[in-house]
Amino acid sequence: MTEPAVVADLTALLPAGAVTVDPEVMAAFSRDHSERPLPGMPLALVRPASTADVQAVLRVASTHTIPVVVRGAGSGLSGGSTAVDGCLILSVDRMREVRVDAAARVVHAQPGALNAEVKAAAAAQGLWYPPDPASYEFCSIGGNVATNAGGLCCVKYGVTTDYVLGMTVVLADGRALTLGGDRVKDAAGLSLTKLFVGSEGTLGVITEVTLRLIPAPERPASLVATFAEVDAAVQAVLQISASLRPAMLEFMDRTTIGAVEDLTHMGLDRDAAAMLIVQSDAPGDQAAAELNRIERICLDAGATECVLTDDPDDGEAFVAARRMAVPAVEMKGSMLLEDAGVALPRLGDLVRGIQRISSDRGVVIALIAHAGDGNTHPMLVFDRADPDSFARAQQAFDDIMALTISLGGTISGEHGIGRLKQPWLERQLGQDAMALTQTIKAALDPRGILNPGVIVR
Amino acid sequence: MTEPAVVADLTALLPAGAVTVDPEVMAAFSRDHSERPLPGMPLALVRPASTADVQAVLRVASTHTIPVVVRGAGSGLSGGSTAVDGCLILSVDRMREVRVDAAARVVHAQPGALNAEVKAAAAAQGLWYPPDPASYEFCSIGGNVATNAGGLCCVKYGVTTDYVLGMTVVLADGRALTLGGDRVKDAAGLSLTKLFVGSEGTLGVITEVTLRLIPAPERPASLVATFAEVDAAVQAVLQISASLRPAMLEFMDRTTIGAVEDLTHMGLDRDAAAMLIVQSDAPGDQAAAELNRIERICLDAGATECVLTDDPDDGEAFVAARRMAVPAVEMKGSMLLEDAGVALPRLGDLVRGIQRISSDRGVVIALIAHAGDGNTHPMLVFDRADPDSFARAQQAFDDIMALTISLGGTISGEHGIGRLKQPWLERQLGQDAMALTQTIKAALDPRGILNPGVIVR
Ligand SMILES: Cc1cc2nc3c(=O)[nH]c(=O)nc-3n(C[C@H](O)[C@H](O)[C@H](O)COP(=O)(O)OP(=O)(O)OC[C@H]3O[C@@H](n4cnc5c(N)ncnc54)[C@H](O)[C@@H]3O)c2cc1C
Ligand SMILES: Cc1cc2nc3c(=O)[nH]c(=O)nc-3n(C[C@H](O)[C@H](O)[C@H](O)COP(=O)(O)OP(=O)(O)OC[C@H]3O[C@@H](n4cnc5c(N)ncnc54)[C@H](O)[C@@H]3O)c2cc1C
Repeated sequence: MTEPAVVADLTALLPAGAVTVDPEVMAAFSRDHSERPLPGMPLALVRPASTADVQAVLRVASTHTIPVVVRGAGSGLSGGSTAVDGCLILSVDRMREVRVDAAARVVHAQPGALNAEVKAAAAAQGLWYPPDPASYEFCSIGGNVATNAGGLCCVKYGVTTDYVLGMTVVLADGRALTLGGDRVKDAAGLSLTKLFVGSEGTLGVITEVTLRLIPAPERPASLVATFAEVDAAVQAVLQISASLRPAMLEFMDRTTIGAVEDLTHMGLDRDAAAMLIVQSDAPGDQAAAELNRIERICLDAGATECVLTDDPDDGEAFVAARRMAVPAVEMKGSMLLEDAGVALPRLGDLVRGIQRISSDRGVVIALIAHAGDGNTHPMLVFDRADPDSFARAQQAFDDIMALTISLGGTISGEHGIGRLKQPWLERQLGQDAMALTQTIKAALDPRGILNPGVIVR
Repeated sequence: MTEPAVVADLTALLPAGAVTVDPEVMAAFSRDHSERPLPGMPLALVRPASTADVQAVLRVASTHTIPVVVRGAGSGLSGGSTAVDGCLILSVDRMREVRVDAAARVVHAQPGALNAEVKAAAAAQGLWYPPDPASYEFCSIGGNVATNAGGLCCVKYGVTTDYVLGMTVVLADGRALTLGGDRVKDAAGLSLTKLFVGSEGTLGVITEVTLRLIPAPERPASLVATFAEVDAAVQAVLQISASLRPAMLEFMDRTTIGAVEDLTHMGLDRDAAAMLIVQSDAPGDQAAAELNRIERICLDAGATECVLTDDPDDGEAFVAARRMAVPAVEMKGSMLLEDAGVALPRLGDLVRGIQRISSDRGVVIALIAHAGDGNTHPMLVFDRADPDSFARAQQAFDDIMALTISLGGTISGEHGIGRLKQPWLERQLGQDAMALTQTIKAALDPRGILNPGVIVR
């Protein structure tokens, strides 16, 4: 079949307006938030409205062995939804129904619904969907499930996979499976649901998810601590984690603080080498008690200042500052963003190593971290107009991945591997685990049409 | 190769005493706690001491296509470690090292270590491994991971998979993989670790696990509520779950209460139709506050009596009573034990349906439940000497599975499918999910040597 015939075929099968080949429209759907790789030229953009539509697309794609790049909201940071030449971009942005079942404490959501929309629907019934990527206002719940997204409250409440009870997923050949369901516990058969969580569009297209909700905790109390030394902040993180379970434990370094302050003028301490933002949602007066213990730990570790507030709005301002970190640093130049995670005792080694790489390569690296989880986001700033600057940033990027692996860590704590880090994955997993990954991919998608280049080559 | 030659081969490869063909010793390792199926006659029992030993066994087994039944502590309830004819029983009971890394808040355990040993090692460092199957004193941590075991505190703290950060697993062909590691978050590649959790020995032999620990919460306060009607207790469960997060929410019916009282003489109310055992581990005086709210809910739902205690030992006595339920009912006759789970709003339908099945089939059914998770354990009592009684119990067992599936539930909330429920699995999963299960099984274990008959045929 010729390419125009495939497009005509899809156009006939799908609702009006669901297929477009307009280059400008396609360009807007052709890349995510990662710097690399550059997008290829898609064959068409398809925007299905239902599971049946997705099945139709995949039947056509598998019949003609056409690559399918699945796209949520395109906020990804690893090139997972970046178009490849000749592909169908399958965007789920029109599938965004959200239905809360309060009695069962679950939400059923179509994949295109934004994380914020899911949270809001749950909140309207007094319930809470915890996972909160900093991008929650502009990332899709399907993308969250496909990347096993993390966020700020994960340190206490876990990551996306901990909330996924079931899903509908369309396989490469167009079959639709319903996995799991609205029961909280399920040990019947292999953990198929969990296998699709974090599969980054390589094993199937998620067309509906069932997520566990929990009763909303109290609004948190907050603590901001500043440190004159990065090491002191890291020590405080280790001490806090050893005995307490704060609902947030975030880190920002001086470069990040400065960038956020430039953008927000909220009065952050530009002289601080590091800042921790900590929250407690313990009930009643226990939040204050928990933060008092954390303040003591911070001061003992050498904090220069601690500010405590039980006013949730004041606390939210600090969290908002943390969420502004990526956009704020992006204003300083172009950016490569890492997602390196290590076991907590290695956090200091990772942070010091990153500082060394920054000076060795002459690259500005701003550092934020979901510190309580040992998950850092070094932000490498470069000048796109200067090829040498870009080359040095790329070298530093690779250095950080090598460092992380040498520390027994992971090159992705939460953003996924995508196309960007695919060449590095085997170095982390080892040959045999990589071979097993290939085996599973080949078993589920024998023609390799689903998101080629992501996770496996 | 002849069978004796295989045994000789294994004997030469493994440490002294690791291989035995003594029928009496083998018999002791040939079945778990399930009533069915009856064990077959194994070729040999092998008790490896290391990952390398396990690799050696699997290389021999795959070369000669010999079935391998993996065995933890044999406390399973679904025939997952029951021997089949001509198999090697691979028991990990000699692999039981436990090593806590307090700074990283993880424990590294060999699979044969008991759950209680892992808990104790963590507690010795002020840390906590939450999952607590009622069998925690006599089930292995590897078996827990292989079945994704639940327990009593899961209602607040989640099930085994939520704590598994990594593992070493030996594949059918003898390759050993190390998956995940001691970092809390990891989004690098497919969720291979999660795929092996709950795989019941069908995809590989787990030879080491890395488990997340958390700081120990305060010792809990407890509430016991009795009800004159089962429905009232179920209503209380739904109301509690809608707004609160107790650390335990267990249910026992009249038959169970009577059996436990017969055994313990602890003064339980034999007239009660149902009893709820609730715990709160909220910090400080918040535990009492939470239990006061729960008491109010129970009384509003029609509880006849509520007893609150903040003495941890008194509370533990009630929990011990709950843990005695299975052995206590087992003293009344032989037992078939179910593991039916539904979404919370369906809990009443399930309980009423079970009562109907009990009277229709003329089978005594004692009911306990991890009620806050919608996970029930109907215990069907029969007389082994009476074939008609056994037949009726089997019919009732099947009726309950059919009922559970018709309510959109799961035939296993936590015990796994094993051999016992394999014939029922497709009815729950559907043909396509079953086919996908087969695909994955065939990809990982092409000769089908690993635990044949479990999960897939
Ligand atoms: C400023 C900023 C802050 C961020 N902060 C965080 C953070 O704190 N934590 C975090 O985890 N991430 C964070 N991210 C990264 C990103 O938001 C997450 O990875 C998010 O989960 C991606 O969702 P998306 O809908 O945008 O997915 P996309 O970018 O569209 O896709 C991501 C991957 O998922 C696949 N995919 C998407 N939808 C489906 C589907 N329905 N079925 C199958 N596969 C699918 C795609 O093929 C791709 O591989 C941040 C990003 C930005 C720009
Ligand atoms: C009185 C009683 C109460 C119970 N309460 C609970 C409860 O509250 N919650 C709960 O979840 N369960 C409960 N159980 C069931 C049982 O204890 C669990 O299923 C437990 O996880 C089994 O562990 P085990 O070591 O005894 O495994 P086994 O019975 O030896 O094996 C169970 C399965 O896991 C596989 N397996 C074992 N070890 C490995 C390994 N190293 N690698 C790969 N596969 C392996 C086996 O092949 C088998 O399929 C209870 C059982 C009893 C008798």
